[in-house]
Amino acid sequence: MREGLGEVMSQSFQSLDEFRQILSTAASADLSAQVAASARNGQLTKPPGALGRLEDLAIWFASWQGNAKPKLRFPQVLIFAGNHGVMAQGVSAFPAEVTEQMVLNFQHGGAAINQLSRTFGAQMAVHALSLETPTADFTQAPAMSEAELLEALQTGWNAVNPNADLLITGEMGIGNSTSAAAICNALYGGEAADWTGRGTGVDDAGLENKTRVVAEAVALHGGQGDGLEMLRRLGGRELAAMAGAMARARVERIPVLLDGFICCAAAATLKAVNAKALDHAVAGHVSAEAAHGKLLEQLGKDPLLALGLRLGEGSGAALAIGVLQGAIACHSGMATFAEAGVSDG
Amino acid sequence: MREGLGEVMSQSFQSLDEFRQILSTAASADLSAQVAASARNGQLTKPPGALGRLEDLAIWFASWQGNAKPKLRFPQVLIFAGNHGVMAQGVSAFPAEVTEQMVLNFQHGGAAINQLSRTFGAQMAVHALSLETPTADFTQAPAMSEAELLEALQTGWNAVNPNADLLITGEMGIGNSTSAAAICNALYGGEAADWTGRGTGVDDAGLENKTRVVAEAVALHGGQGDGLEMLRRLGGRELAAMAGAMARARVERIPVLLDGFICCAAAATLKAVNAKALDHAVAGHVSAEAAHGKLLEQLGKDPLLALGLRLGEGSGAALAIGVLQGAIACHSGMATFAEAGVSDG
Repeated sequence: MREGLGEVMSQSFQSLDEFRQILSTAASADLSAQVAASARNGQLTKPPGALGRLEDLAIWFASWQGNAKPKLRFPQVLIFAGNHGVMAQGVSAFPAEVTEQMVLNFQHGGAAINQLSRTFGAQMAVHALSLETPTADFTQAPAMSEAELLEALQTGWNAVNPNADLLITGEMGIGNSTSAAAICNALYGGEAADWTGRGTGVDDAGLENKTRVVAEAVALHGGQGDGLEMLRRLGGRELAAMAGAMARARVERIPVLLDGFICCAAAATLKAVNAKALDHAVAGHVSAEAAHGKLLEQLGKDPLLALGLRLGEGSGAALAIGVLQGAIACHSGMATFAEAGVSDG
Repeated sequence: MREGLGEVMSQSFQSLDEFRQILSTAASADLSAQVAASARNGQLTKPPGALGRLEDLAIWFASWQGNAKPKLRFPQVLIFAGNHGVMAQGVSAFPAEVTEQMVLNFQHGGAAINQLSRTFGAQMAVHALSLETPTADFTQAPAMSEAELLEALQTGWNAVNPNADLLITGEMGIGNSTSAAAICNALYGGEAADWTGRGTGVDDAGLENKTRVVAEAVALHGGQGDGLEMLRRLGGRELAAMAGAMARARVERIPVLLDGFICCAAAATLKAVNAKALDHAVAGHVSAEAAHGKLLEQLGKDPLLALGLRLGEGSGAALAIGVLQGAIACHSGMATFAEAGVSDG
């Protein structure tokens, strides 16, 4: 049980409508903890505002943990993997087999996210979602049935440890930057080219083909329903599982660090269902994938890091755990002017 | 003894000219380690370049540690404190007594840098330099005599543990952003207003007064010698100690993360003596102090973090230890494509 939260209701859902309902009625942050954390921040031995973004970050975290002197003890990193029917359109520089090969690499501890999780003390788990059954090619039909979407959302939801005090969702799915671009284009409009990038590294011809695929998909599915319906039609199982996990964190009041373009596209489908669905989330980084910065603007999130990463796996968000740890350590550990006998200007 | 470096020569110096000489003949990074680290980076289980800046950072660190699979085990944080005669000109929002009060706060573990050092596993020490004897008011005379500068440089030099594998220098010194602004203006030209900022938080009238002080100081001392002479005339004991410590790190091939405006002004005096003096240094962050970004451009350093910090104490650089730990963990810990059986595109 996390401190300060009292008993947590672990609701579940049996239908997409029930999921929408739970997401839309989730409790907000603890305002009294936020007020108390802000007051504490003003008494710490530093000039007002001198810790910059770290101050806001600590107060935000305090408000979701419900504790004016919060602690970060149990960050959870969940990696979801899925395969994509749209790979039939030749959208990636890597073959689809790499998804499963990388799942094995995660399980054996050899990937970037393994090293980052260990560095920042996070518990990491990987969930492979029906890799042997790719989603449908969404240039031809919806990527998933309603039952498939529901199952993937539930997989993500159930993977969250309600005792975690921070959640990061990462992904592996060759082809999934095409899916994310299609979701963004369907949700936010503009041209397919505005949202389509090089992913793991397609060349100019590959980018042109990928842009065509996104445009065709959005022509077929755009405007056919809400965020969750766009997730079903244009997403993938790993994106749906990420959305399910982030929704669970919202309900449990567990703060979230958002990763890159794919993670944020999954998050965007939640925000399209309910405007407050991402109040518990901060952007861990902005990636080198061309459209990620624009997507973060749509989400109203200012990234903590901008280091040119474009790996996925939750890697950018995991790196940002260090920044959050620093912010919380300063906020909860520093002496006040009164405690230290320092003149406050 | 750090790995891969063989026997380290711990030279010392008895005069300013000897210091200049040692700085100018210091060995460079280990190119063979750099080549081997680059080759390793290309074999890791990720698309080429997908870890962005983390890849360059790990290779840079490898080249200075002399190890293609480097480790970061012993970061050292050194805080130097000094008092400034220029406080007679009313340049700060805080009284000079705060310098000593904050030294006690560092010693008792209550400051931001204590929390950040603990978070990232750094050994921290604080050195108060003759706080009872402020430097001279540099609008009237050189801040330090040659003997005083030499002693402060030696204090910094001797504070470095040659077994450390990363160095951060931080400072505390009410009035020292005026000193840093004067050094920058003397080294790089332009107007006093280009280099003068609000420090710990002076108001508009305070900023105007501070700008006048910088202009007067540069009119008196500018063009009177090299970087070290500018450090003597316009610096302070804590800036000189930081310069001495960073020079020692250069000689010992210990990588450095630069902190904010004051730290970088001290570093700039070394670069003015020898263009390669900061090859072992990466900018940990860019601060909210107005001129820091411009100073980093002069140093040719692209900051890792931009989170609006303006505290000093080494805090921004200490926060960047987390980024460096992540970079090194990925580089040295990830599986190669061959080890993991992953198709490389």
